[in-house]
Amino acid sequence: MTDKREFTSIVEALPTTIPFVGPEAIERRIGRTFDARLGANESAFGVSPKAVEAMRREASRVACYNDPENHDLKMALSAHHGIRPVQVVVGAGIDDLLGLAVRMFVAPGQTAVASHGAYATFIYHVDGFGCRLVTRPYRDDVNDLDALLSAAKESDARLLYVSNPDNPTGTWREAEDIERLIDALPSTCTLLLDEAYVEFAPASAIPRMTIDPRVIRFRTFSKAHGMAGLRVGYAISDERVAQGFDKVRLHFGVNRVAQVGALASLGDMDFVCDVVERVEAGRKDYDRIGRALGLPTLPSGTNFVTFDAGHRERAEMILASLQEKGVFVRKPGAPPLDRCFRVTVGTAEERAIFEERLTLVVKDL
Amino acid sequence: MTDKREFTSIVEALPTTIPFVGPEAIERRIGRTFDARLGANESAFGVSPKAVEAMRREASRVACYNDPENHDLKMALSAHHGIRPVQVVVGAGIDDLLGLAVRMFVAPGQTAVASHGAYATFIYHVDGFGCRLVTRPYRDDVNDLDALLSAAKESDARLLYVSNPDNPTGTWREAEDIERLIDALPSTCTLLLDEAYVEFAPASAIPRMTIDPRVIRFRTFSKAHGMAGLRVGYAISDERVAQGFDKVRLHFGVNRVAQVGALASLGDMDFVCDVVERVEAGRKDYDRIGRALGLPTLPSGTNFVTFDAGHRERAEMILASLQEKGVFVRKPGAPPLDRCFRVTVGTAEERAIFEERLTLVVKDL
Repeated sequence: MTDKREFTSIVEALPTTIPFVGPEAIERRIGRTFDARLGANESAFGVSPKAVEAMRREASRVACYNDPENHDLKMALSAHHGIRPVQVVVGAGIDDLLGLAVRMFVAPGQTAVASHGAYATFIYHVDGFGCRLVTRPYRDDVNDLDALLSAAKESDARLLYVSNPDNPTGTWREAEDIERLIDALPSTCTLLLDEAYVEFAPASAIPRMTIDPRVIRFRTFSKAHGMAGLRVGYAISDERVAQGFDKVRLHFGVNRVAQVGALASLGDMDFVCDVVERVEAGRKDYDRIGRALGLPTLPSGTNFVTFDAGHRERAEMILASLQEKGVFVRKPGAPPLDRCFRVTVGTAEERAIFEERLTLVVKDL
Repeated sequence: MTDKREFTSIVEALPTTIPFVGPEAIERRIGRTFDARLGANESAFGVSPKAVEAMRREASRVACYNDPENHDLKMALSAHHGIRPVQVVVGAGIDDLLGLAVRMFVAPGQTAVASHGAYATFIYHVDGFGCRLVTRPYRDDVNDLDALLSAAKESDARLLYVSNPDNPTGTWREAEDIERLIDALPSTCTLLLDEAYVEFAPASAIPRMTIDPRVIRFRTFSKAHGMAGLRVGYAISDERVAQGFDKVRLHFGVNRVAQVGALASLGDMDFVCDVVERVEAGRKDYDRIGRALGLPTLPSGTNFVTFDAGHRERAEMILASLQEKGVFVRKPGAPPLDRCFRVTVGTAEERAIFEERLTLVVKDL
């Protein structure tokens, strides 16, 4: 029997590659565990003890469905940001919400714009829904907002994706530059402003929290709140866009443990502030290491630091050697950033392991 | 400024209604909590203590991302079912996987077939991806497989959805009938066999676990494992279909706590068997109550029992009165099942509350 159960043409055309190979998968392949896991921008400084306590309590209550409205978390987030609950959409991480945004705004064949080498999962969704991706290179290691804007105009883009502070560079654009971009957007184009790392950013990089129909802002509990494995992110948008999310989102997508954990962590901002301070100290440590080893670092407003190895081959060699020596880091794949590698701010202990191994690697180059 | 940031035509056309209003939302609206929550087919018999223990341990580890490959759980599931790991796809509940299946197989304008009044979330996804839904009524309170098959042939359907045992009836078709359906499927149509309630079903209702390119089987930890709030389900399919899921799924969609909880529960099948026995006892209790009050019950191979109130108005009145008296149940909305209401098997205590309140309701009719 010939199997005629074909996938849709969009799905059939998709590659089988996935956005990120997890460190566990690499460990299974190489047959050893990493001594320092510094490649996924996970928080080295853990989770709020109050959140852990709340999650432990909730573990015995999972027989009941989670609240599909995410009511309590949504109320707390709206109070936190001084906006209305109908302007908040909770999802299973920013990844989930980016996919929904593409589905909502970009029909197959229409265009989305991003920097060349931008967040892989956004690109995964653009491809996944049969949309066209137009990219512009980073310039001077920051998102080139003018070039992205021109590309959006030229390609009649429905979405323009910018992460600020940026991943994978760690750099940022000032709030006034973002606001100027918003004012210049074509009237058919929505800005997806991915602020996953916002807690680590200088205040000057963060636009004022106003609700604007031209922008969807994305926040997460994965980074400063230390809850990457929990899958909670949220979008801030005007009510019309939030209602659009409600038409397509997986209503039971955020599980009970995640809901109560995020809520408790939001109520423990002292913990988050402490994490941010520790990350700042760690970034300085990485700057020192980079200077000592002739690998200058890019400015970072995130919980990772991008080291400049000068050219691609050297960066790839460093990445491979570090992995061989038990240190997991990642590197941007697209020029001009492919000369760099990206290291999450670890604990003092992890940073010491990283420094020791990197020193050996550089000696061997 | 006129806002020209339009949703795609598919999303624009979607209603703002959602598949299920959660009991929490009803409680918020009516301003009181339910004494007995028997409307969402949640397990009244809780979660494996081993799973609770595993989840509690994991609560302090959520700073790390979950394994996007769901490796450990997938290995355990494949061992459990005697199939290969590449034939298992783990998702955030069956809801998640049903949406992906629609996206994979049904292009906008193409057709999916289901019984009239079938699982609302499947229909939500069919609508959500701009596909056409063709339905056939239940006959004698079971899925009318012949009618569904004819509809699939006539409409050139890409998917045929059947839940077995069925929700919202609780009834089932025999395995041999399902197998005959599979053999008769058009060569372009895939059967989505939703087996969410399979643990509660008679053995004769469960087709042999063979991998078949014509079928995707869906299982869940929400029901017998008592983990509805955790969001873990899985699909069993041939490798080609599983690879299709990998092209479109949210790779980090199943959180760490859910992964370890499901894994631990799968390792505690004694607990699950005990739940199944308790549910059987509860079903008998409901049968007795139904006979005593002149509300006959449908046969059930699930963790709920469907009571026949004779006609729609009477069923709606019972539903509303029960809710007023603090008991949350649901009812099918579509004829001919709209004459029924559906009650989850609760604990002995919850069943006593239900019996007491239902007795009052019936007296007042």
